[in-house]
Amino acid sequence: MSFNTFGHLFRVTTWGESHGPALGCTVDGCPPGVAIDEAAIQHWLDRRKPGTSRYTTQRREADAVRILSGVFEGRTTGTPVQLMIENTDQRSKDYGEIAETFRPGHADITYWQKYGIRDPRGGGRSSARETAARVAAGGLARAALAELAPDIRIRGYMVQMGPHGIEGARDMDEIENNPFWVPSAQTAESWGAYLDELRKSGNSCGAMIEVAASGVPAGLGAPVYAKLDTEIAAALMSINAVKGVEIGEGMGAAALTGEANADEIFLGNDGAPVYSSNHAGGILGGISTGQEITARFAVKPTSSILKPRASITKSGQPTEVITKGRHDPCVGIRAVPVGEAMLACVLLDHILLDRAQTGGARGAIG
Amino acid sequence: MSFNTFGHLFRVTTWGESHGPALGCTVDGCPPGVAIDEAAIQHWLDRRKPGTSRYTTQRREADAVRILSGVFEGRTTGTPVQLMIENTDQRSKDYGEIAETFRPGHADITYWQKYGIRDPRGGGRSSARETAARVAAGGLARAALAELAPDIRIRGYMVQMGPHGIEGARDMDEIENNPFWVPSAQTAESWGAYLDELRKSGNSCGAMIEVAASGVPAGLGAPVYAKLDTEIAAALMSINAVKGVEIGEGMGAAALTGEANADEIFLGNDGAPVYSSNHAGGILGGISTGQEITARFAVKPTSSILKPRASITKSGQPTEVITKGRHDPCVGIRAVPVGEAMLACVLLDHILLDRAQTGGARGAIG
Amino acid sequence: MSFNTFGHLFRVTTWGESHGPALGCTVDGCPPGVAIDEAAIQHWLDRRKPGTSRYTTQRREADAVRILSGVFEGRTTGTPVQLMIENTDQRSKDYGEIAETFRPGHADITYWQKYGIRDPRGGGRSSARETAARVAAGGLARAALAELAPDIRIRGYMVQMGPHGIEGARDMDEIENNPFWVPSAQTAESWGAYLDELRKSGNSCGAMIEVAASGVPAGLGAPVYAKLDTEIAAALMSINAVKGVEIGEGMGAAALTGEANADEIFLGNDGAPVYSSNHAGGILGGISTGQEITARFAVKPTSSILKPRASITKSGQPTEVITKGRHDPCVGIRAVPVGEAMLACVLLDHILLDRAQTGGARGAIG
Amino acid sequence: MSFNTFGHLFRVTTWGESHGPALGCTVDGCPPGVAIDEAAIQHWLDRRKPGTSRYTTQRREADAVRILSGVFEGRTTGTPVQLMIENTDQRSKDYGEIAETFRPGHADITYWQKYGIRDPRGGGRSSARETAARVAAGGLARAALAELAPDIRIRGYMVQMGPHGIEGARDMDEIENNPFWVPSAQTAESWGAYLDELRKSGNSCGAMIEVAASGVPAGLGAPVYAKLDTEIAAALMSINAVKGVEIGEGMGAAALTGEANADEIFLGNDGAPVYSSNHAGGILGGISTGQEITARFAVKPTSSILKPRASITKSGQPTEVITKGRHDPCVGIRAVPVGEAMLACVLLDHILLDRAQTGGARGAIG
Repeated sequence: MSFNTFGHLFRVTTWGESHGPALGCTVDGCPPGVAIDEAAIQHWLDRRKPGTSRYTTQRREADAVRILSGVFEGRTTGTPVQLMIENTDQRSKDYGEIAETFRPGHADITYWQKYGIRDPRGGGRSSARETAARVAAGGLARAALAELAPDIRIRGYMVQMGPHGIEGARDMDEIENNPFWVPSAQTAESWGAYLDELRKSGNSCGAMIEVAASGVPAGLGAPVYAKLDTEIAAALMSINAVKGVEIGEGMGAAALTGEANADEIFLGNDGAPVYSSNHAGGILGGISTGQEITARFAVKPTSSILKPRASITKSGQPTEVITKGRHDPCVGIRAVPVGEAMLACVLLDHILLDRAQTGGARGAIG
Repeated sequence: MSFNTFGHLFRVTTWGESHGPALGCTVDGCPPGVAIDEAAIQHWLDRRKPGTSRYTTQRREADAVRILSGVFEGRTTGTPVQLMIENTDQRSKDYGEIAETFRPGHADITYWQKYGIRDPRGGGRSSARETAARVAAGGLARAALAELAPDIRIRGYMVQMGPHGIEGARDMDEIENNPFWVPSAQTAESWGAYLDELRKSGNSCGAMIEVAASGVPAGLGAPVYAKLDTEIAAALMSINAVKGVEIGEGMGAAALTGEANADEIFLGNDGAPVYSSNHAGGILGGISTGQEITARFAVKPTSSILKPRASITKSGQPTEVITKGRHDPCVGIRAVPVGEAMLACVLLDHILLDRAQTGGARGAIG
Repeated sequence: MSFNTFGHLFRVTTWGESHGPALGCTVDGCPPGVAIDEAAIQHWLDRRKPGTSRYTTQRREADAVRILSGVFEGRTTGTPVQLMIENTDQRSKDYGEIAETFRPGHADITYWQKYGIRDPRGGGRSSARETAARVAAGGLARAALAELAPDIRIRGYMVQMGPHGIEGARDMDEIENNPFWVPSAQTAESWGAYLDELRKSGNSCGAMIEVAASGVPAGLGAPVYAKLDTEIAAALMSINAVKGVEIGEGMGAAALTGEANADEIFLGNDGAPVYSSNHAGGILGGISTGQEITARFAVKPTSSILKPRASITKSGQPTEVITKGRHDPCVGIRAVPVGEAMLACVLLDHILLDRAQTGGARGAIG
Repeated sequence: MSFNTFGHLFRVTTWGESHGPALGCTVDGCPPGVAIDEAAIQHWLDRRKPGTSRYTTQRREADAVRILSGVFEGRTTGTPVQLMIENTDQRSKDYGEIAETFRPGHADITYWQKYGIRDPRGGGRSSARETAARVAAGGLARAALAELAPDIRIRGYMVQMGPHGIEGARDMDEIENNPFWVPSAQTAESWGAYLDELRKSGNSCGAMIEVAASGVPAGLGAPVYAKLDTEIAAALMSINAVKGVEIGEGMGAAALTGEANADEIFLGNDGAPVYSSNHAGGILGGISTGQEITARFAVKPTSSILKPRASITKSGQPTEVITKGRHDPCVGIRAVPVGEAMLACVLLDHILLDRAQTGGARGAIG
């Protein structure tokens, strides 16, 4: 990861501001011959796009993606793929009053301090709008994964909204049936009520999202500093507003004993190892075990709220900030497809890295 | 981060196995003219080295560092600094029996699967012994920080051992007075009793460590994928056995409202911004605010335990594993100086990155 | 350099095909606050654009650049700058017949062999049209250099066309007065006659270009693998059709004795070193001396010619290729502004790298 | 390439000074399972080591390499390989007098200007002694190539010494039979006489070396900025004292017409393309064609000569420099194995890159 680029071999460079003419990403290093078109990428963007329910920002963006390069007659050519999304519903006047004021919890003040200049329109580069480019890149990554590792299935879902976890057992079939991507119909209902209340009061809340990948082959990852858990953690932590990341047991691993934590190993019927449990989250020593990879990340509450907060202006005067505009009461909701996209990109990148170094050869067991 | 290298401009490449002749790191990109000698680096290595109390492995390694390049007459020259530590107390026979068996919770099986070959002696490359090289690099980073940003103070300490948190108020002056680097004399005592018990039973436990840096100038970090929190998270997650990382509120941010989470801003007496709180952990939008940077990471329990665990051999036969040898009952203890070292390296790297792009210029407030 | 990206800190990723909807570059890592607008970049693009004389391709492209991100109110913000150029005069039908045939001297066959798919329209990614993006990036680099190192002056000019060198003494004031950027009015005239002849016969020729930078501060470059001469060589060699690169004496250094080659050093009136000669081309040990940096590169003759050449089709049938379309009889002409742009980017990148590592400090002489 | 590291996936970081305790390299990313031991690497080092004939420096270094990591029971494990060479014949007193003086043609002055500190003993980091580490890395690269691409054969040889080219026809079988690696017994004799004369007079001369690789599969290279010719050019230009690099026709391509330069394509008996000529040096559009890859590089004359040259001291006083010590009269001789090593590393790196992106798939012809 380097400034605005992530990935070693499947390299994604995102660009663009919230209220500029467009944003997008340049994806370099994609394998050639991958079947892709705009509709396939649009599918994933539509899941992230604003205004799909009353629980997300009311900004109306079509988020229509254009493929400007790297694809010929429906297949990638191995050259850079430029994915561009034009901004169409900028209302920069909404933000006029914040050009001179630093919103608490925002990057306004740090961008100003670092660069001595900032694009204040909609948060500029620090806007969550940047994540649309990630989702577009993730769409391409998924298309490549479908060809290189068709067993991989990636799913994201919310597991906590504000202080509220999932009520009752998880029902993964419910994920697509509610605006929160929570695997529980009952929970979706009570979260909806909670968020309505919060939104009306001009407040916001945080969220925790889990992303999981099944069907991942054993052997992905590259010790020591490109451990698969390191790379997933970095990818998720790079998403706006994320403040914590866990793999498998995560922070809870601190409380366990070695006896409880060690996933026991058996030989499965197909000759591949199976495990009694998955405290490791599918990764041992930085390398995938073949079990499901599970990661969680926490998104802080949207900082743009109608509740007044004390702050200062650029000239150092004390002021009180109420952030109008069209904001997500729980930006974590739209982080679900973003987390999925990042996981897809990391897995593809490591499939490429692995076949570079090992050629896909594997140590035999049994 | 790339395989065995981390850092953009202050780049550390570590090498070496647990039971090979030596291990070390090549540090490239260090500023020239930094005062350094072997004793200054040894100071930090001695904090991590094994056998310093009955709570760490009884392997006896002097961990004596040699500077082989990049330093002339007590100052760095700007060329690569090679820091080498010879292994002196390898007892590979301790590990003979595990060459054909996969220890649950270890990288044995994944290294085998990925590479088709592994150095089984002491875990080879996946051993926590690799972290000695990180601490050596961190010693050099601290020396450079002392010249470039002398106000920075980095401290690590344990905040949880197994299920036990800190009892009572934190007393930071106690950190150096106990083998756990816990900021509480009373807690140190009860943790000691807990760990004695655990060790005798052949078990182990996890831990949570906090690392904090005060005196960090505002403006470090590089959106979007080299956010300072991303970089710290990756650096900490790359440490052996780490399964979760948090910045500021961390995973707890999910439970907060926007009103509670937004650190209010005021103008301090010296003209610099001050904040009512530090939920952000000193980082907003990926860029340092000037507040204390706080990060926590969870270390899973040592997987090498005397409790029998089910596993398989390379030939696929079921077996039961009891890991003899000399192991840490709580490897998290020795992770404290490692976490500090990683934070030092990341901060130095970002000071260099920042002065590259901005020349150190800053937007004025007031 | 990595696939479609070059530069360490001032990083340019180019994208786009000759006959796709657009091409461009994402420039990451530009210092903030640099004054820039589309007109300033267009100035440099207009020097490279096709159709400006009868000696270049008759394709009519406005090469109008749009800044899509990273600039706010006429200044860079430190975030990625997206520079896009829409293709407007694609006539892909010109190329229909070559989709199944490999043109000798072109990348047709190697792209096909490597990727198993290629965009045949106008050479796709391998077209010299890609260099427009380099020139755009170079325009931004020049704007940054104007602020960071205002004494630097970069100039490119042709020193050989086909077998013909410069006749008589160089007159640098003539460079802008002829379509070949050759520093000699007389030479321009005879080259024109030569090229007219060549063009009419359906043939093409190679060229040699020199790029020079004066006013470069001493101390740029980073041994051992990022030597300034290495970086300039790589930057120039990456330009389409370039087959050789020289710094200072270049290939001619092989023939010299040590006595002849060693530039003697004196102390100048202003306290800075001066040299009796500049065999080194302004670089010693990979680091700039403060003298003029001089590099030359050879561009092979355009492979698209009307002369019939033997080749094969994708199905392996023998065929004869005559490349119609609109091609440069001497593509080296338009390589002049490209070489300048690459040199500008490398110098800016190294100014940033240098201030990262050394903070701009210098060893004193005298 | 980045400071002291080169390679994308097969990454070599060299370290060490001419008169420090040791030098070496960390090689990261080597495929696992490659058969290697110290003797295999020593074979290549012995070709480069000083003192093997009267035409090279009389410094006596065994250049004995030790493998400190990454190899287990005679095979690489996929983890970093540390190759260390201890310096044993430092005579730093030879260099005492130059600590305060800048030798013309050396990096003394630029290192001082950039870093404000330098290790003057034997040129420190800028010494050609650094190339021993490259040769060691190249030995490992060759071992990996022997398994991944066994048809590749890499050869280096001198084609010019001072002003003298090869007399008569090349006889490649003679390369190993003379101290100059020149493919001509007669030329070796006359070069020997020329160099004896030069050495006695205290002078030195430059050289031109050609490196060639046959058996390279078609499809290696990665447009646009990691073109195979760019990467080879950078690798060769990074060698000490190199001032020019050519691929195929090289600088001579400038003088050709398109008709003369375009290598015609035919279908060979085995179904693979064959070419009527190899002006391209085995690379089209940055990607290998399957033909022999040919590159040349020019090494400037050794700057350390007994002929007095004017210079200045650190305090700015004029002085005259005669460089005693033990120097190569033609450092280009020992650059032959270095060039071979660099080519081996680049080819291996690109084999890994290629199988990462394409999986080794290829477009079929015929």
